[in-house]
Amino acid sequence: MIIGVPKEIKTREYRIGMTPAGVRQLVAQGHTVLVETRAGEGSGLRDEAFTQAGATIAQSASEVWHRADMVMKVKEPLPAEFEYFRPGLVIYTYLHLAAEPVLTRKLIEKKVRAVAYETIQLPDGSLPLLRPMSEVAGRMAVQAGATSLEKWRGGKGVLLGGVPGTRRGRVAILGGGVVGRNAAKIAIGMGAQVTVLDVKSETMDYLEDIFGGAIETLYSNPANL
Amino acid sequence: MIIGVPKEIKTREYRIGMTPAGVRQLVAQGHTVLVETRAGEGSGLRDEAFTQAGATIAQSASEVWHRADMVMKVKEPLPAEFEYFRPGLVIYTYLHLAAEPVLTRKLIEKKVRAVAYETIQLPDGSLPLLRPMSEVAGRMAVQAGATSLEKWRGGKGVLLGGVPGTRRGRVAILGGGVVGRNAAKIAIGMGAQVTVLDVKSETMDYLEDIFGGAIETLYSNPANL
Amino acid sequence: MIIGVPKEIKTREYRIGMTPAGVRQLVAQGHTVLVETRAGEGSGLRDEAFTQAGATIAQSASEVWHRADMVMKVKEPLPAEFEYFRPGLVIYTYLHLAAEPVLTRKLIEKKVRAVAYETIQLPDGSLPLLRPMSEVAGRMAVQAGATSLEKWRGGKGVLLGGVPGTRRGRVAILGGGVVGRNAAKIAIGMGAQVTVLDVKSETMDYLEDIFGGAIETLYSNPANL
Amino acid sequence: MIIGVPKEIKTREYRIGMTPAGVRQLVAQGHTVLVETRAGEGSGLRDEAFTQAGATIAQSASEVWHRADMVMKVKEPLPAEFEYFRPGLVIYTYLHLAAEPVLTRKLIEKKVRAVAYETIQLPDGSLPLLRPMSEVAGRMAVQAGATSLEKWRGGKGVLLGGVPGTRRGRVAILGGGVVGRNAAKIAIGMGAQVTVLDVKSETMDYLEDIFGGAIETLYSNPANL
Amino acid sequence: MIIGVPKEIKTREYRIGMTPAGVRQLVAQGHTVLVETRAGEGSGLRDEAFTQAGATIAQSASEVWHRADMVMKVKEPLPAEFEYFRPGLVIYTYLHLAAEPVLTRKLIEKKVRAVAYETIQLPDGSLPLLRPMSEVAGRMAVQAGATSLEKWRGGKGVLLGGVPGTRRGRVAILGGGVVGRNAAKIAIGMGAQVTVLDVKSETMDYLEDIFGGAIETLYSNPANL
Amino acid sequence: MIIGVPKEIKTREYRIGMTPAGVRQLVAQGHTVLVETRAGEGSGLRDEAFTQAGATIAQSASEVWHRADMVMKVKEPLPAEFEYFRPGLVIYTYLHLAAEPVLTRKLIEKKVRAVAYETIQLPDGSLPLLRPMSEVAGRMAVQAGATSLEKWRGGKGVLLGGVPGTRRGRVAILGGGVVGRNAAKIAIGMGAQVTVLDVKSETMDYLEDIFGGAIETLYSNPANL
Repeated sequence: MIIGVPKEIKTREYRIGMTPAGVRQLVAQGHTVLVETRAGEGSGLRDEAFTQAGATIAQSASEVWHRADMVMKVKEPLPAEFEYFRPGLVIYTYLHLAAEPVLTRKLIEKKVRAVAYETIQLPDGSLPLLRPMSEVAGRMAVQAGATSLEKWRGGKGVLLGGVPGTRRGRVAILGGGVVGRNAAKIAIGMGAQVTVLDVKSETMDYLEDIFGGAIETLYSNPANL
Repeated sequence: MIIGVPKEIKTREYRIGMTPAGVRQLVAQGHTVLVETRAGEGSGLRDEAFTQAGATIAQSASEVWHRADMVMKVKEPLPAEFEYFRPGLVIYTYLHLAAEPVLTRKLIEKKVRAVAYETIQLPDGSLPLLRPMSEVAGRMAVQAGATSLEKWRGGKGVLLGGVPGTRRGRVAILGGGVVGRNAAKIAIGMGAQVTVLDVKSETMDYLEDIFGGAIETLYSNPANL
Repeated sequence: MIIGVPKEIKTREYRIGMTPAGVRQLVAQGHTVLVETRAGEGSGLRDEAFTQAGATIAQSASEVWHRADMVMKVKEPLPAEFEYFRPGLVIYTYLHLAAEPVLTRKLIEKKVRAVAYETIQLPDGSLPLLRPMSEVAGRMAVQAGATSLEKWRGGKGVLLGGVPGTRRGRVAILGGGVVGRNAAKIAIGMGAQVTVLDVKSETMDYLEDIFGGAIETLYSNPANL
Repeated sequence: MIIGVPKEIKTREYRIGMTPAGVRQLVAQGHTVLVETRAGEGSGLRDEAFTQAGATIAQSASEVWHRADMVMKVKEPLPAEFEYFRPGLVIYTYLHLAAEPVLTRKLIEKKVRAVAYETIQLPDGSLPLLRPMSEVAGRMAVQAGATSLEKWRGGKGVLLGGVPGTRRGRVAILGGGVVGRNAAKIAIGMGAQVTVLDVKSETMDYLEDIFGGAIETLYSNPANL
Repeated sequence: MIIGVPKEIKTREYRIGMTPAGVRQLVAQGHTVLVETRAGEGSGLRDEAFTQAGATIAQSASEVWHRADMVMKVKEPLPAEFEYFRPGLVIYTYLHLAAEPVLTRKLIEKKVRAVAYETIQLPDGSLPLLRPMSEVAGRMAVQAGATSLEKWRGGKGVLLGGVPGTRRGRVAILGGGVVGRNAAKIAIGMGAQVTVLDVKSETMDYLEDIFGGAIETLYSNPANL
Repeated sequence: MIIGVPKEIKTREYRIGMTPAGVRQLVAQGHTVLVETRAGEGSGLRDEAFTQAGATIAQSASEVWHRADMVMKVKEPLPAEFEYFRPGLVIYTYLHLAAEPVLTRKLIEKKVRAVAYETIQLPDGSLPLLRPMSEVAGRMAVQAGATSLEKWRGGKGVLLGGVPGTRRGRVAILGGGVVGRNAAKIAIGMGAQVTVLDVKSETMDYLEDIFGGAIETLYSNPANL
């Protein structure tokens, strides 16, 4: 199968749909991987990294979309990409169709077979392709919050972990799932006093198992919030 | 030298001035150790434990005091023991003379050579014989506090560590020295949210080194208290 | 629905069937919550706390039982409460019917719809309303044990964590489920040397994952016991 | 003594020379504390906080400087403040005179008694008033570094702790003193792989004692750098 | 039932199919346990340990095999033991039949009912009798690896944990299941810098939960390997 | 100064007196460093590593000893090296003269200025060049002990950390100084149940600070031993 990887065109999207490691695995299984030139630039990956892994470099987005049997992306296709839709084309990406009625209609109209990463489920109901996003989100959230508390950025001038002899910052995290647990890790690591609110006692129990006395869990109800 | 170990006679004092291990060390160095019969009872140590270590059992307090060159005790001598004082006798015990003017006068009068454990200093100024007492005090304090919070003992019905989904107990510890650090260990271990107040930033820094995010240190001043 | 919360009348039962936070949630969903005056006293909750959350205060147990469609309690109804039973009344509480044949007959006779907290199961077979009780039980057990080892309470004079230079207390815990794991947390935290005996290697493996070298697990068989 | 606390006038200096807690302590010792109005604004402290602690509010910097026997500040006096210098006045602040020849001459000329926080030494040679600055510096450094690695701020798009399945960020810290140790705490806490370079094996040994396997220490020489 | 435990005859196999604790449990349930004399020798267990637990000692392997209804072993039967096979005999041991075609034929021919430990499954598909083997394997692997790095055994002269000021050893573990997780525990404990490669993000997430910053997880693909 | 680094000639001594990093530092300070060819072989360091750092390679031990003003080694000179001794030559190495009367006489006779690493003291009395040796010794000791417990090497067949459900190995460490503390780290890390015996309560207190409940400290006396 020819698998195409075009450069993302959404503003502030620096990622790419496949790493050289992914290329290597697919090529080893007999597929052809077609990567648009400079598609990896935003992630610090040069074309050579992809050719060394066995990819072919395409000179334009158009080439990738036309030759590929399946296109692997990060973000949903934008209007500029609708023209490449054709019956039988497979698109594999984060789609979030609920928020994109125009895109949805186009995909149906052109009989594209679109697979949304965010809907892929394992037999136990878990969503494996959302988990890494959640992990990044949880960890980044605390870093972003810590930064925005800095005085010179307009914050309150609070250092999350304080220093010996001063109060530590208080961090409340709603929900102790993948996002919340990863946020808790970083918040604890930065020295904050962390409270996680959740409604499932099993989840809270697990958080106390792994974080010990470094965390407080609290039943999430209107009074506690 | 003949070293005598009488049974403690103070109310609620279950300890004894020397363990069988201590007997063994002194006997190995050529001393005679004379232990009053049943002196170890309060600590669960039978006479045989002392004889196996090389001690001689005396049948009365009077025998111990009269034959011994040095008496090793736990607590200060009580009036009933003043009659045994004599010039040249060495008494080695916790004395706390400041609180005991009568005892002090008696010791001087009878020319007893009394050495108070609590005043023994190492070259660096530390008090090695008070340290274990401080360690016990710090650890017991939290245990006693936790117990007195129990509802059926008249407390507020607070469990120090709470359980997942509920607030943990708050413990404030004044001073991060030997007592405070040992209290903090147990309080953290029982799951409480612990704040140690101190005025030395070096001490607070060390507490954060060893306890990490499980503790908050706070500068001790009237406002924080 | 009118939900009634009478004061508990069992000796030494200081709890109450609903907190103000619970009241707030139910009122927000359109229910009326009727709390007997001073029902929260044993938990340090005054009537105002309940009225501020939206509850109505009833002046007697009788009023609560008669007006309520559903009564929420902590402990099983006592004989003095049997007179309030009536067809259609819902009682939601810890019942432990196996130990209460008289109560069981009364409930059947009066066609009360009684739901026992302890029997509520999630689809995976877990008992969510027993878990917090187990957590409290496990944590309290070690605290109670530590206290009863104190010399002046008639114990052996053992401090669970010892102090540097002395033996630590040994704690053996039978079963590594919710109760055992919570007991282990506190016992480790108090500095004891902890052994958990269980028959499921998966359970023991998890305990070693979260407690690391601070615990020893042992296969539970007659020889080890 | 009348102790004056003027508002800091240096750009981006939001701190104040004394907190309300400090005021309370000095007033309790019989001193008069004169705080310039709005001096605490940058730290989120209103005039009332100071008056409640016992301070008197002065309406201008000039009033503070003229009435005070001792002025407590954060930063070195700026040229606009030189006019207030007078023989016998005590100034207590961070001075860093080596970098300020004009200020130095003015202080000598006007016979001001200036005490630089950064030069105050304890008998053991440590600098207690620099330690908290070092602690803040070390902790902020990692937070600032983590932020500047974010893609949208022009960084390499590296998350210090990575997420499961990806490489963690590498952080090298030169020197394992107060700054370095505090930087290491936050870097470890954010999930980075941390190496501290130092030349004193005692320092590195201590870091491994408190951080265990979460850190690597390396002898600092040209080859390792 | 008569349960027989012969001495293992495979070279370097020091284990025995049942411990005295196992004997005690089976005897308590009414079975007769017949242990070959000196069968426990390799594990440091003398015949008396088994008789005290209720076993009968047999003087030869032949006696055990002939009298037993079920034989419990560690390793697969060797040719010298084939002669004892008979219809209806139950053998309970690690069999690994895939590697043993001759043994397989013999078992079928003689209508032996052989149960292989390694194939016993719980309802959730886990293999409880392989887990302890995996735990031992994972822990031993690192110990063996550390040893074989010693210079005088022909290794590279690398100490896994290094010492302060030197690089730590790097350990890469393929797979984060039972074997890998146990290997990681020991490798981290010995001070190495540990990377676990796996393909399941849930597994890697759990490893980071329990090991915190002491481990790096990496997606296992040809590029990372 | 010309500094010479000959190849070590003692049996089983694979180390070398200076690493390329050390060469770089000394050359940067204006010294000439003369390294015997293949001297780094035992440590996996080729001649090029030294020349790249600025060293000159000598073709024989004789050349190194004759041209050098100071010789840096690891182990004490052996008889084959005595012939190179001459007045004014400086030798800097581990000497352990107490065990080497012949060497001592030779050094005096030939007026060599020998500096023993093991005797170099800092103002606080610590021995900085023995510390790394002690760290290696402590860590290796446990690894060696763990290995020698393996059954097939003639040991008792004990795995230090056991596995879930079995007893862990017991490790007793005499002395909690640098050697003991490093041994404790590895022993705890391998999962053993560790007891450190010492006589200084300050030392034991520090061990409990950094190892928490993972260790037991015990006063070292004949009874406990």
